[in-house]
Amino acid sequence: MIIEILVIGNEILIGKTQDTNSNWMAKRITKYGHRIHRITTIGDSLDEIARTVQEILERAPAMIITTGGLGPTFDDMTNEGVAKGLGRELVLDKHAYNMIEKAYKQAYEQGILKLEGMTKEREKMAYLPEGSIPLPNQRGTAPGVKIEEKGTSIFILPGVPAEMKKMFNNVIKPILKEEEGKFYQKGFILSGIGESQIAPYVTELEEKNPELWIKTHPRVGLAVEVEISVTCFDRPNCENLIDKVLKKLKQTVKNLGGIIKKEYD
Amino acid sequence: MIIEILVIGNEILIGKTQDTNSNWMAKRITKYGHRIHRITTIGDSLDEIARTVQEILERAPAMIITTGGLGPTFDDMTNEGVAKGLGRELVLDKHAYNMIEKAYKQAYEQGILKLEGMTKEREKMAYLPEGSIPLPNQRGTAPGVKIEEKGTSIFILPGVPAEMKKMFNNVIKPILKEEEGKFYQKGFILSGIGESQIAPYVTELEEKNPELWIKTHPRVGLAVEVEISVTCFDRPNCENLIDKVLKKLKQTVKNLGGIIKKEYD
Repeated sequence: MIIEILVIGNEILIGKTQDTNSNWMAKRITKYGHRIHRITTIGDSLDEIARTVQEILERAPAMIITTGGLGPTFDDMTNEGVAKGLGRELVLDKHAYNMIEKAYKQAYEQGILKLEGMTKEREKMAYLPEGSIPLPNQRGTAPGVKIEEKGTSIFILPGVPAEMKKMFNNVIKPILKEEEGKFYQKGFILSGIGESQIAPYVTELEEKNPELWIKTHPRVGLAVEVEISVTCFDRPNCENLIDKVLKKLKQTVKNLGGIIKKEYD
Repeated sequence: MIIEILVIGNEILIGKTQDTNSNWMAKRITKYGHRIHRITTIGDSLDEIARTVQEILERAPAMIITTGGLGPTFDDMTNEGVAKGLGRELVLDKHAYNMIEKAYKQAYEQGILKLEGMTKEREKMAYLPEGSIPLPNQRGTAPGVKIEEKGTSIFILPGVPAEMKKMFNNVIKPILKEEEGKFYQKGFILSGIGESQIAPYVTELEEKNPELWIKTHPRVGLAVEVEISVTCFDRPNCENLIDKVLKKLKQTVKNLGGIIKKEYD
């Protein structure tokens, strides 16, 4: 599956918050053999959300995952923005309403919050794009959302990492596993020779093995250490291929006078 | 100034590397009173880079900053992708060539690298889009690039954080400071009442003061703690306005039975 992530929140754009959600999701999406095509980060602006959702849909990914902008304040406008982008109405969802009411009731009974019952701001979180399926939020109050649009599944998740992770594991992980592809990655770290010295051998091996993605990565500016990782997506004999290529690369490094410092899976 | 960031690298999309460059730059861009409109993260693909550069240019930001994809290996293709996006030739830049040659000479003399002189892979880093100004890399080998295109300044920076930071401070920071705007942010953390309880008061204050951006942010899922921050961009009396609004918000929190835990500038 090809997946796009849309991160929504002014706090990311002004540098107040480091977005760690994308990286957390990217690891898991990759692990199950799927690919993230693009990660887009935008602010809490109605028109910007609408426009960006339309742009992503034009690229027709199998899945769009958004994070952030589901809270009770008026600058949380992800649902409204997605609705606008899809040309759908924003409607009060009874299931979502009940989820929110229940979460606040519990918080009140546990003494966490002092205000009982629903308010206009709490109710706002139950307004979803028409045709949505609300997703329970087991770590907070704002429900997530699932929408189908022209072959793309859109998942709208909260921005608070604990809430996002729980919802991702409950709802998205099973779908990723159902359509699981295989993904392998192995590599090693070397020293004594630079990235540019090993580059022609990497190019040659990559041309011979188009199913592999071989990446060298300088670990300090001037190539005191170089990391080589070999990645293989969902092909037969992925692991054998990687092992064969790594063996050749290690021999090349030794021939050039380099030292292999650490291997990893 | 309106600025867009373009992060280029498969390692970010597969979750192997957490992009910290954007957050580091966002803090500094915001501090000098400028705004990031969007952060886009894409893979090392020639067509994808070309297409995305064109998309960003259509939004006509004052500045585009790209990070990543400047290394010696064949999958580092940012310069080629930008050239394609701008419809310019990729040409050998003599200044860039000299910078690279010098960096490798030093590394060889210091015993860091064992291969002397230029190779095809090292030379590759000197091929820049026509009309580029190369930017010295004081922490590595690949030069950065500055290009002007239809009123937008494009800065191409390395992805290795130490190299990116040095180049940003040398080249971009002076430009940000030259056109410096003022940016203020103050806030506090409260407990005992939830985000949805404070929301109507925040909305009212924000409607009265459109020059402010007032953000509440739950610090744990169910609003055990809420952070309120007030941000003001480049208006007269920013600080007085923020102080006035914060005073009202603190009084509201107290009236609702909440506790103010921590104030900050």
